[in-house]
Amino acid sequence: MVAMPSETVELRGHIIDSLILPKVLDGILTRGANFKIAEIRIGQSRVDQSYARIEVSAASDAMLGDILLRLRQHGAEVLERKNVQLAPAPTDGVFPDDFYVTTNQQTYVQFDAKDLLVESPMMDCAIVVDHDSRKARSVKFSEVRKGDQTVVGHQGIRVQPVQRETARTSVFQFNANVSAETPKTAIIRELAREFRQIRQANGTILVVAGPSVVHTGAGAHLVKLIEAGFVQRLFTGNGLAVYDVESALYGTSLGVNLERGSVADASRENHMHAINRIRQAGGIAEAVEQKVLARGIMHACVRHGVDIVLSGSIRDDGPIPGVTTDTVEAQRIMREKLRGVSLVLMMGSMLHSIAVVNMVPATVKILCVDIDSRVVARLTSQQTFQAVGLVADVEPFLRELVEAIEKAGSNSDRKPAA
Amino acid sequence: MVAMPSETVELRGHIIDSLILPKVLDGILTRGANFKIAEIRIGQSRVDQSYARIEVSAASDAMLGDILLRLRQHGAEVLERKNVQLAPAPTDGVFPDDFYVTTNQQTYVQFDAKDLLVESPMMDCAIVVDHDSRKARSVKFSEVRKGDQTVVGHQGIRVQPVQRETARTSVFQFNANVSAETPKTAIIRELAREFRQIRQANGTILVVAGPSVVHTGAGAHLVKLIEAGFVQRLFTGNGLAVYDVESALYGTSLGVNLERGSVADASRENHMHAINRIRQAGGIAEAVEQKVLARGIMHACVRHGVDIVLSGSIRDDGPIPGVTTDTVEAQRIMREKLRGVSLVLMMGSMLHSIAVVNMVPATVKILCVDIDSRVVARLTSQQTFQAVGLVADVEPFLRELVEAIEKAGSNSDRKPAA
Amino acid sequence: MVAMPSETVELRGHIIDSLILPKVLDGILTRGANFKIAEIRIGQSRVDQSYARIEVSAASDAMLGDILLRLRQHGAEVLERKNVQLAPAPTDGVFPDDFYVTTNQQTYVQFDAKDLLVESPMMDCAIVVDHDSRKARSVKFSEVRKGDQTVVGHQGIRVQPVQRETARTSVFQFNANVSAETPKTAIIRELAREFRQIRQANGTILVVAGPSVVHTGAGAHLVKLIEAGFVQRLFTGNGLAVYDVESALYGTSLGVNLERGSVADASRENHMHAINRIRQAGGIAEAVEQKVLARGIMHACVRHGVDIVLSGSIRDDGPIPGVTTDTVEAQRIMREKLRGVSLVLMMGSMLHSIAVVNMVPATVKILCVDIDSRVVARLTSQQTFQAVGLVADVEPFLRELVEAIEKAGSNSDRKPAA
Amino acid sequence: MVAMPSETVELRGHIIDSLILPKVLDGILTRGANFKIAEIRIGQSRVDQSYARIEVSAASDAMLGDILLRLRQHGAEVLERKNVQLAPAPTDGVFPDDFYVTTNQQTYVQFDAKDLLVESPMMDCAIVVDHDSRKARSVKFSEVRKGDQTVVGHQGIRVQPVQRETARTSVFQFNANVSAETPKTAIIRELAREFRQIRQANGTILVVAGPSVVHTGAGAHLVKLIEAGFVQRLFTGNGLAVYDVESALYGTSLGVNLERGSVADASRENHMHAINRIRQAGGIAEAVEQKVLARGIMHACVRHGVDIVLSGSIRDDGPIPGVTTDTVEAQRIMREKLRGVSLVLMMGSMLHSIAVVNMVPATVKILCVDIDSRVVARLTSQQTFQAVGLVADVEPFLRELVEAIEKAGSNSDRKPAA
Repeated sequence: MVAMPSETVELRGHIIDSLILPKVLDGILTRGANFKIAEIRIGQSRVDQSYARIEVSAASDAMLGDILLRLRQHGAEVLERKNVQLAPAPTDGVFPDDFYVTTNQQTYVQFDAKDLLVESPMMDCAIVVDHDSRKARSVKFSEVRKGDQTVVGHQGIRVQPVQRETARTSVFQFNANVSAETPKTAIIRELAREFRQIRQANGTILVVAGPSVVHTGAGAHLVKLIEAGFVQRLFTGNGLAVYDVESALYGTSLGVNLERGSVADASRENHMHAINRIRQAGGIAEAVEQKVLARGIMHACVRHGVDIVLSGSIRDDGPIPGVTTDTVEAQRIMREKLRGVSLVLMMGSMLHSIAVVNMVPATVKILCVDIDSRVVARLTSQQTFQAVGLVADVEPFLRELVEAIEKAGSNSDRKPAA
Repeated sequence: MVAMPSETVELRGHIIDSLILPKVLDGILTRGANFKIAEIRIGQSRVDQSYARIEVSAASDAMLGDILLRLRQHGAEVLERKNVQLAPAPTDGVFPDDFYVTTNQQTYVQFDAKDLLVESPMMDCAIVVDHDSRKARSVKFSEVRKGDQTVVGHQGIRVQPVQRETARTSVFQFNANVSAETPKTAIIRELAREFRQIRQANGTILVVAGPSVVHTGAGAHLVKLIEAGFVQRLFTGNGLAVYDVESALYGTSLGVNLERGSVADASRENHMHAINRIRQAGGIAEAVEQKVLARGIMHACVRHGVDIVLSGSIRDDGPIPGVTTDTVEAQRIMREKLRGVSLVLMMGSMLHSIAVVNMVPATVKILCVDIDSRVVARLTSQQTFQAVGLVADVEPFLRELVEAIEKAGSNSDRKPAA
Repeated sequence: MVAMPSETVELRGHIIDSLILPKVLDGILTRGANFKIAEIRIGQSRVDQSYARIEVSAASDAMLGDILLRLRQHGAEVLERKNVQLAPAPTDGVFPDDFYVTTNQQTYVQFDAKDLLVESPMMDCAIVVDHDSRKARSVKFSEVRKGDQTVVGHQGIRVQPVQRETARTSVFQFNANVSAETPKTAIIRELAREFRQIRQANGTILVVAGPSVVHTGAGAHLVKLIEAGFVQRLFTGNGLAVYDVESALYGTSLGVNLERGSVADASRENHMHAINRIRQAGGIAEAVEQKVLARGIMHACVRHGVDIVLSGSIRDDGPIPGVTTDTVEAQRIMREKLRGVSLVLMMGSMLHSIAVVNMVPATVKILCVDIDSRVVARLTSQQTFQAVGLVADVEPFLRELVEAIEKAGSNSDRKPAA
Repeated sequence: MVAMPSETVELRGHIIDSLILPKVLDGILTRGANFKIAEIRIGQSRVDQSYARIEVSAASDAMLGDILLRLRQHGAEVLERKNVQLAPAPTDGVFPDDFYVTTNQQTYVQFDAKDLLVESPMMDCAIVVDHDSRKARSVKFSEVRKGDQTVVGHQGIRVQPVQRETARTSVFQFNANVSAETPKTAIIRELAREFRQIRQANGTILVVAGPSVVHTGAGAHLVKLIEAGFVQRLFTGNGLAVYDVESALYGTSLGVNLERGSVADASRENHMHAINRIRQAGGIAEAVEQKVLARGIMHACVRHGVDIVLSGSIRDDGPIPGVTTDTVEAQRIMREKLRGVSLVLMMGSMLHSIAVVNMVPATVKILCVDIDSRVVARLTSQQTFQAVGLVADVEPFLRELVEAIEKAGSNSDRKPAA
């Protein structure tokens, strides 16, 4: 009998109830390989950590390597630790062959027999190690420079996945995906409490929003949320900005009167004239200054110091000044503005939300609200134990959230706007 | 050249802006036939009626017959009027071959050179004419008796479609299908006004509701609507009734706590025990009397004299007493209870709503609310100029409607409950 | 310090990779209780069974009881086994208070210190124990008779959930939910192989189908599947039957010509005349015999001895003879005809499929195909490790499945039709 | 009595069965204004043109102006023709106040008492008139230069909407929106015929495609369509290109093996390595030349001279060289490459398809295929009488279309690739 290639891996932490051990064993079986549990110590009560040592054997080195890669992404650590392998980037913007592709989990690389924490964990990057400073960081294609020492293969890499906290104090611990057929009042109350806690701890809240926030008449609620100090950053596109301006200037959204309601005129004219007004003013902030723009979401953002990132898309009319039309540059700005964010509230925007989901570390809380259950499923699927998805109308959701935040606040210290 | 089969038809009324003339001409062209407009008089202002006389010619008699059938359903009247043709039903429950299939529009048959109005217009019936009483009525398969004189072919039939009123005073005139991406506050205000008008005119409001009314936490709003006298009849199934009882007895809906919210226990136990309690009591009304059931939708219906029709489905657990488990009998009851209904509000129920849509005359107003745009489209597609569809969460919709009705009422005479 | 109520439970089997242990621990934490793992032995290789003994403690007896109920449904066994508690049914059709509500998993009750296997495991039943024969069986509301000894509370009950087989030889082991955005050719090939294996082992295949099978033009493919011997039972409603007859008699489905395609006439006339023809003939089988019906799905079923169950709904036109219009009786027939079924193929039918999903034991394989991802998610959510869901057009799916079955068959022994 | 503001408008053409007259009258009534039909002549047979002269009166000048604007967009011509009003653009990139916003219909402006046809009709532009050359053209925000003479107000503008041809020879005349519940074989056969006719007339076919074309396994069918000469241009994004390269290099799409099927490994690694390979090669064409890329959609496009436009989005990984990351520049390129296009086939792409729908003139045929009915509705809603939407799985649709085109071709002259 020929010896099959095998390796020993270790798992630590809340590996049972965070589903890490089951996923690891499942990953081994699904790929047709075998395991033997050499040792297992399961935390006896819920605050204890668990530990498992598992021997994995597979039919070929290639298959074993593939399996180890997956296990590492679930937090398994190969027992005989080796240094990471590095290779220089062959040219600007190109990684070496077989570069390691990052997840958004906290990751360590072993370098000179020491563990380096990879800075800015983010999906779909390479890891570049600086010999001198002994720092490792995740790097996008556009950021790599010729000669950068880049991690290749899978050796010497350790991923530490977000684990479910044992005390389920936060609604985000439940990783809930709340269907349209479920009462939302209670969960919105919970979320309101969470919003207040984050702000009391001086956390940063990012809103990612699409044009339907304006179309559905939810703009006024978002303005209140901004005024109450619960929005620090806003990522959106030309669409929401223009619809908001149109509604501020003409009372319509895509020609539909927001007061009189939907059964009306659907002209594109106000929309295009709104763009023209902002182009003439020189931009959103200028329009506010010139008092062309005196109400609405954009106005509230300018007045309350909310950081606005407007990213361009090929669907845009105009666009207005301030929209970053280069998509790579827009991604760079968003990555920068994601630093320090504690919670992302995504509403009615597929394009911008996917972009953000691709960039956030696994530790950031995500709240996704959309009337389309597939959008909610898509956006919450990557954030384990940190994402809440609600299939809901954006307008009544936001109205209720703002009311619940106000109500929660009236019983406690008022948090002044940032 | 051979003469093609041809007929002359006439159209009267608001045939231009009710889209009748265009549909007629389109129907002719689509079937590859020809028309010649022999005469046309278009009403000069919006209160005037229009008139058109059109010669239709087609390649064959069969095709011409087929076209005339469609035109009749759009209100065209074949000029040379003849008496309807009748044939006896061959046996109970079976119509003669080639029986005329009704629409839900107002229909006349010419009998003994006189026009008889067909009673109880309804889709998918045959028309039976009584020689003696000179009455014509629409008849379902289950109602026809051997020998009944039944209309066959298409001769001598005149359909008078609902036409759009020239004064657009009602929101239903717009036949709106309001998407999820549209502000609903204004239209809900309009609808509230309509509800009040109907009740002030002593009209009858029918609610058709599915279990999601309870799941989403909208039950309390429906109770308010009932208590305020805006529901005269309720068509639903075993599902809603049981969920409502479960929520009244245990505070849960399918095991989900409606107060504490969705992130909880999803047991089936309360659901089954609720059924058992009602079976033990002998039914809903009995449970109310015995004070087993002291709150909720069913309780409000019993207390306020709302006529409940519970129809069975193969999906039912239980069912509870009072559910009509025979579907043909349930249809019969629904047809009977549809008499005199002015407005149907359909919420979150595909099965019961389709059943109702198949039974209502074209003159009844339909308001359909569902979070699934396809359900809304399906339910409103048959009622021209009388249906409003809203793609919306049921819970916030109903909350807002009830608030708007209350608000509208506080400024006017209070309408006492029926 | 007051002692909290506590119990010791045991778990056995593939409790790690079948996710049973994680679910159990998660269930404890989610309800705010505590656990202590007293002993754990994890199978060292994939064929070995695992074992865990866990002490659960909770704040109150009620909470502990609630938790133990959930744990039992995941297969946990309370260590100090006691006999089940029984109470007599107070009257026909009514269970005693606090009756135990079944799942569709294999279940044992301890009676006279012996384990009785509950016959016909099915969701949402009570368990009735016969003292004399020492048999336990699951019983629906309609079946219980006054005095029947019925299990109450949760004591003495052991559930043995379906566990994932360690060798993943069947596509159903993966419990896949295949989205619209995924290639389906490979999985359909796998499914075809599974169909052949089931028939080679003389297994019984049940098709649950809705009218869209006919509308989409998939009827001809279903006929081929029947002719090749891969359908033993068909559960459907009046709708599919009538559309099939309409298409056989007139070449249309809801007036749409299936050959010429969709851009045509949508009359209801053929539909109603088809119903009339079958009513006149006396039923489907009679129509086949009288050569009124000479093609289509119903014809193939009659010719090939497929057991047809037609259940009524309030949406039905007609209905035709042979439709069981009483829904409780229809459920009884379906339960009976589900005996011995190995695989259920559900296509384009929400109503009938939900009814079936509520009735099947957890061991039956379920393949659900629908273009609506929510329907697929709903129907596959209850069958762990035994359900495959495909979000797909029914017509091309069925065409490809039939081709793949034929192809797989040409390389092996031909299985003659049942 | 005070005279209400009024104007007389004229309509010409197939104004009845193209629904122009009904829409015009409806537009007047909906806005609460009045009309009087001064003269009407309706074409007596289907080849004749019709004519109507209508006096419109409204409560205010503003309302009348608003109504006239809508009527003009439906083709109404204000009787007393006046020259257009012009104003200079105040600065680069900004139009004068009250600039006229274009539709995508054929439009004329009256200048010096003569009608100028506006070049490149497109939605949401302004019209700039050149005094010297006497030419009018539609201009985007980014194209206008300071001083350009731009049309303001609504005077002197005539829109000539696409009218339905009286002979319905093309499937696009029916403006069909084909639901998931409809047989598609016949319409696909029709579409295949249309594809062949367009290519026989040397027409240009544009494919707009999203990544799901690759995910669903439809890539091979698109390659065949390209090889057979039925694709001249391809608009897509970085996503499809990279998935196609991944599938060509590694046999996977987002890590899912396209041959073995969906129940497998979902790694992101192949995806990122594919991007790296193309970046290293310098681009798609270079990768084909260097034989790095030897199969797939991109390879076929390069080999067969298909014009590829890759537009960037903030969702992109990479991106690969050749992607236009500036969205305004990408729009400019798409507008240029839309010239001369006869038919657009849109599959599985919301973002790119909306961008294209916003740019095409009303005369271009649009075929939109998506599994989401809302996407289909959204994309076909603007193109009257020229758009066919199919709610369908992309993979089987494209397979069937390619087969039907091949079949249609085998009976006629083979059309060589462009």
